Amino acid sequence: MSDPIVFVLDVAPADAAEPAAGWASTVHRVERGTPILEGTDLGATRGDGVFETLGVLSGLPQAISGHFWRLARSAELLELPAPNLEQWLVAMRMAAAALPSDRQGGVKLALSRGIEGSGQPSGWLVATEAEGDFPERTSGIRVATLDRGYSSDLSERAPWLLPGAKTLSYAVNMAALREARRRGAQNAIFVSSDGYVMEAPQSTVLLRRGNTLITPKIDIGILPGTTQMSAFAVAEEWGLETVDRLVPVSELHDSDGVWILSSVALATPITAVDELPIAVDHEFSGRLNAALISRRE
Amino acid sequence: MSDPIVFVLDVAPADAAEPAAGWASTVHRVERGTPILEGTDLGATRGDGVFETLGVLSGLPQAISGHFWRLARSAELLELPAPNLEQWLVAMRMAAAALPSDRQGGVKLALSRGIEGSGQPSGWLVATEAEGDFPERTSGIRVATLDRGYSSDLSERAPWLLPGAKTLSYAVNMAALREARRRGAQNAIFVSSDGYVMEAPQSTVLLRRGNTLITPKIDIGILPGTTQMSAFAVAEEWGLETVDRLVPVSELHDSDGVWILSSVALATPITAVDELPIAVDHEFSGRLNAALISRRE
Repeated sequence: MSDPIVFVLDVAPADAAEPAAGWASTVHRVERGTPILEGTDLGATRGDGVFETLGVLSGLPQAISGHFWRLARSAELLELPAPNLEQWLVAMRMAAAALPSDRQGGVKLALSRGIEGSGQPSGWLVATEAEGDFPERTSGIRVATLDRGYSSDLSERAPWLLPGAKTLSYAVNMAALREARRRGAQNAIFVSSDGYVMEAPQSTVLLRRGNTLITPKIDIGILPGTTQMSAFAVAEEWGLETVDRLVPVSELHDSDGVWILSSVALATPITAVDELPIAVDHEFSGRLNAALISRRE
Repeated sequence: MSDPIVFVLDVAPADAAEPAAGWASTVHRVERGTPILEGTDLGATRGDGVFETLGVLSGLPQAISGHFWRLARSAELLELPAPNLEQWLVAMRMAAAALPSDRQGGVKLALSRGIEGSGQPSGWLVATEAEGDFPERTSGIRVATLDRGYSSDLSERAPWLLPGAKTLSYAVNMAALREARRRGAQNAIFVSSDGYVMEAPQSTVLLRRGNTLITPKIDIGILPGTTQMSAFAVAEEWGLETVDRLVPVSELHDSDGVWILSSVALATPITAVDELPIAVDHEFSGRLNAALISRRE
């Protein structure tokens, strides 16, 4: 895998007009190994910021509108200055164009509150070529369910806990992945304290039961899934029903297929939950991934 | 207030021997405005790291052993390479010495997992002179109680949620402070979903009832408080009883005094909880702060 390629953005306010030299003049690719953030940046000292990762296929970034909508939403939930989406779009396209066009990859957009007291957000982008060819899209992975500690009425009860915001504060998500590996699994699925499926630390959960695709509803305090939205759009074209609702954890064991969905890895089928094998739908995995790969937004 | 002063550490493994040029040779003060972290540092992209902030009085860092014990404990909970405490001690003293000796201030130690895939943690320190003279130590502040979403048996039930670790993932703590301000308060006190007092977003809660000082027990998923430990030591010398136990939120309204304790601000008395005035013990605030200020560790 080549090294990630980093770009720094001179973050403009949402209402700023495009400079005469164009938005591209506000984006700077940095040499490998160059530090870009100060030690007082709230992104680094408090995880106080938001991010998005877009998948890039054949040089084309995917699900742009979904990711940009969610970036703006996360920023609003954190009361950050609204991002200038036009500027970020130019920067994101520059970062995606830096990737080899024959490889899958991703572009991360990161927006922090910036240096404490400055009122000026920091923005940067990281373009990364994917490692390997995603054999898990066909082989599948095992997951461990992990209590997320929150009940399913969290969003309503405690919005200051930032449910639904994709923040730079991911230490718990990373710890959950380590715990899953300790349990012999490759990923985790978070479960609410009252027993409902939430999300994976970096992806959305999808279930198939007969002709219906199901995903946990986001008002239990989870992220809206951009790849899940694409999967639902595809499934509806195929005549399947789609629904978001409360999903009791027992349904993971009582479905015709379970997947985790994310922007770069796309649809990864689950073969076992807490060491118990579950039904695997290889045919649907193949069809769904082919459809996601052939998207042209 | 002067600008914060930043130092970068070439992080050494816990078992590394001191280099011939001394640990001081591994610490570098950086010029104001110099970036020190790459855009792929997991501290910045995932809040994946730990920190401590020590109070500095008359040039002397306070409660060193408590902070260093907690730094090592947080690193262990995050499965980071154990910090070399001898190296950090030298770096911390250099940072503290950079502050004016006639002002109160603090030194933050930050240790992240480093650049993704490198296995090499990043370390840095920020020395900051305190703003103002802490009038709130006498005037007190109002707090709002905020649901933390977690029940009091969290530590036991879900250690992967990192209860008790002081991580760089503080976006929720910062959001809670904003919510408190929106409610007309100056700070927040987190309450468990089953109604027990936890901690403030950046400090420990202390109550006095008669001759007893009380603090919430840490196994409900909160940080051990370094200033609280000092306060208990002082109080025991004064012949008071000290106890850590479950504290129902109603006790905030039924005490002889409530404080939040932190390393730089020390003991701040609470005058109102959720807009209801509570008993304020100015005499004890004064005595306790005087004792904390005159500590010489």
